[in-house]
Amino acid sequence: MSTQQRLFRETDEEARGLALHLLRNARFGALGVICPDTGAPMVSRVSVATDAAGHPVSLMSDLSLHTQAIARNPACSLLVGEPGLRGDPLIHPRLTLHCTAEATSKKALKPLYLSQHPKAALYFDFSDFRVYRLTVSGAHLNGGFGKAFHLTPDDLGLI
Amino acid sequence: MSTQQRLFRETDEEARGLALHLLRNARFGALGVICPDTGAPMVSRVSVATDAAGHPVSLMSDLSLHTQAIARNPACSLLVGEPGLRGDPLIHPRLTLHCTAEATSKKALKPLYLSQHPKAALYFDFSDFRVYRLTVSGAHLNGGFGKAFHLTPDDLGLI
Repeated sequence: MSTQQRLFRETDEEARGLALHLLRNARFGALGVICPDTGAPMVSRVSVATDAAGHPVSLMSDLSLHTQAIARNPACSLLVGEPGLRGDPLIHPRLTLHCTAEATSKKALKPLYLSQHPKAALYFDFSDFRVYRLTVSGAHLNGGFGKAFHLTPDDLGLI
Repeated sequence: MSTQQRLFRETDEEARGLALHLLRNARFGALGVICPDTGAPMVSRVSVATDAAGHPVSLMSDLSLHTQAIARNPACSLLVGEPGLRGDPLIHPRLTLHCTAEATSKKALKPLYLSQHPKAALYFDFSDFRVYRLTVSGAHLNGGFGKAFHLTPDDLGLI
């Protein structure tokens, strides 16, 4: 049995439910991309909503460094599950998603996005903003110390 | 003048002060690393403190996927500046740090780390935990819409 097999628990209904809760309730997250200039990782804050199929989507400006990075390499990772400002943040559950970013229809997503981000109505229609779908290929959940799980798109109800 | 030059403002005392405030007050952050298996970015939550020189440090378990990733490739990125759970998170200032991770003396850092993370006394001495220094090579500050700045280590008072 490898270290990874010992480290991760068998994914159960509780883990699936917690992961789905974190994803569905995320309003922002930390997006990791590959910096085109250096090949190093780069993490930025992005808005997060979920589309009708349950995948995360984000409204991003063409001017942002992360938008320019995913134009070159769409492989990215999104961390959701915000701890707030009290207590030990490492005890708060969080979900790391492995994703591929792709620009999607801004018009089709507008009602759904604005229902989750009403204040974004101020800039949603700006011409440099696009909606990106972050198609999830896998995830891992950290439910607190010693509670780590691998999840498939199927575990998250994603088709 | 390139898009990047137009996008970023000239770094001033206010930007330096805000960036330093975000770094010095961070107790956790989102760490982006390169996944050894796929070469894709991977973002996890980590604890954050600052060492005597002002660089971020983190207490990480050998069992964590991000620790295994930086053992293979120490290039990483740390996002700090937590918005809390109210208001538009994209208006809240945040700082993206470009770093190189290196294991450092756990014993030397213990008093400083525990002064910033008293609850970590429960597991600081566990044999699988090490302290990593995230040496900062550059940063960018997003102080809210249209307020982006590049910063050097010198801007952050880092030598």
